[in-house]
Amino acid sequence: MSGGLGEFGRIRRFFAPLAGPGGLQLRDDAALIDCQPGKRLVVTVDAMVEGVHYLPDDPPDLVARKLLRVNLSDLAAMGAVPRHYLLTTALPVSFGDEWVARFAEGLGQDQRVFGIHLLGGDSVATTGPAVLSLTAIGEVDAGREVRRSGACAGDRIWVSGTIGDAFLGLAVLRGRYPQLASEERAALISRFQLPEPRTKLGPRLAGIADAMCDVSDGLLADLGHICEASGVGAEVALAALPLSASARRLAAADPELAVRLASGGDDYELLFTASAGASETLGALSAELGLPITEIGTIDKGSRVRLLDAHGNELRVEAAGYRHF
Amino acid sequence: MSGGLGEFGRIRRFFAPLAGPGGLQLRDDAALIDCQPGKRLVVTVDAMVEGVHYLPDDPPDLVARKLLRVNLSDLAAMGAVPRHYLLTTALPVSFGDEWVARFAEGLGQDQRVFGIHLLGGDSVATTGPAVLSLTAIGEVDAGREVRRSGACAGDRIWVSGTIGDAFLGLAVLRGRYPQLASEERAALISRFQLPEPRTKLGPRLAGIADAMCDVSDGLLADLGHICEASGVGAEVALAALPLSASARRLAAADPELAVRLASGGDDYELLFTASAGASETLGALSAELGLPITEIGTIDKGSRVRLLDAHGNELRVEAAGYRHF
Repeated sequence: MSGGLGEFGRIRRFFAPLAGPGGLQLRDDAALIDCQPGKRLVVTVDAMVEGVHYLPDDPPDLVARKLLRVNLSDLAAMGAVPRHYLLTTALPVSFGDEWVARFAEGLGQDQRVFGIHLLGGDSVATTGPAVLSLTAIGEVDAGREVRRSGACAGDRIWVSGTIGDAFLGLAVLRGRYPQLASEERAALISRFQLPEPRTKLGPRLAGIADAMCDVSDGLLADLGHICEASGVGAEVALAALPLSASARRLAAADPELAVRLASGGDDYELLFTASAGASETLGALSAELGLPITEIGTIDKGSRVRLLDAHGNELRVEAAGYRHF
Repeated sequence: MSGGLGEFGRIRRFFAPLAGPGGLQLRDDAALIDCQPGKRLVVTVDAMVEGVHYLPDDPPDLVARKLLRVNLSDLAAMGAVPRHYLLTTALPVSFGDEWVARFAEGLGQDQRVFGIHLLGGDSVATTGPAVLSLTAIGEVDAGREVRRSGACAGDRIWVSGTIGDAFLGLAVLRGRYPQLASEERAALISRFQLPEPRTKLGPRLAGIADAMCDVSDGLLADLGHICEASGVGAEVALAALPLSASARRLAAADPELAVRLASGGDDYELLFTASAGASETLGALSAELGLPITEIGTIDKGSRVRLLDAHGNELRVEAAGYRHF
């Protein structure tokens, strides 16, 4: 017993105000979702563990927003518009109401950003580190959802935004790259702590992309997932990878870093393949959304992902993305 | 690193065979759910923590089935037919593939019992006890879902099955009631370890019940939730509570026990209110399903739940259901 609001008190005070119409004020056993004709629901779940996926000292509102955003990124990767979410928190009893209040504040902030609502959840106590699990639900026109398995030989490979900044942000948090200006350091840390799920771009790629996923395990590993699911191979030009100005400068001073940026994770950009003819449409979309969409390689009939240097020689890649076990 | 199958290996080996059509072999970022015309989806999430909701030595297949069943019970309480589920496991690295294999076996067994499929999930590592979270999705005719807030003064209160056996089962696990025969002890333990969600009864009560919930916090606490949501009160006759033969015998020897059975939790029976006129229909339904449905009290215009003894005097109740914080 914490002597605080208690389980029901916390739900009523902090979470009930976040509930949407189908959430029934979080007072029922379950929530309701209305299905629109011609639509399909898209559902995903992602969990975060204190000390594994975020640092114990990370601000609770940022932790909440990251948890929400990594799930919204999965919805975007299927071409879905986000609608609702459910939340499970397993918290140490030592976490007071204040932590929960700030966590819920973060959720509320991002609900407004992304136009979504809380549907329901569960809150339990654990004797270990906090474990947070979120189920996100989106909507897509039936048949227009984008899967990983649709890549065809000859497709071009594109990625949104920039790659490697979250990897560098984590390194900065661990004391690396003291030579960077403080605002550059802050920007990289923010890419790690608060990813920008491409919820506007994803649904616009339904009907354009043949295959898509978000970059969470690392660009090369995630491209590997597309290739495996599609039964194809891919080649990626290292020099084509879109890097931020900070990343470009660091990579210029350390040639091996560029390869690590391509295998680091947590970018939450969209990685997709489409026929070469989509290039013009994608250029217009990029301009409209103010978001770089960069062609980085080609799908081929092979079965491997090959990273090529400026001379077309294959580079050796060590890490294949973060794995938990 | 466990040296075992690894995260992706475990998903492929143990969980992918459990995936239904919308689960896309668990190879995509998210899963798809088709919406049927005239239906609404019902969604719920419940978590279990090792050492809090189950004992570390409990067989992994039973843990899996309990996790699934407590969620199916929530769907039943809204009158929904269960369809799909998503799963998050946060496991200590010390849990080997064998534990996961047996856990998945339990899920597979219950998928066949309840006619449901895995849609997706996430598996992460934790340095603390295992935390398991499951999101269950069911389907109900739009507008026929049963909520907690529909109870009316004059409604009768019914409950399915028997009450208090799970409470006694946990006590037996802790060494209480050595006087019981070993098969009685086993039956009570089984009620605690493997609840029987009323998935057949729940959907049949859509259109009959005015308000419903499942008994998880304890009969009196859960009836309190219905009363609060509906703005009504209730009186329950202690003598009317449906008890198993074992519970009846133990309560006869210990008059205070009967009250504790009414406030113990984990029964996962359905508790609902309906007009007195539903009595005949409910009798027929009880006979058809081979499941007791017992009238235990009446909804009134008050705001409290009152438990009455055989003389109509109010009994004092201590515990109001288990709370985590």
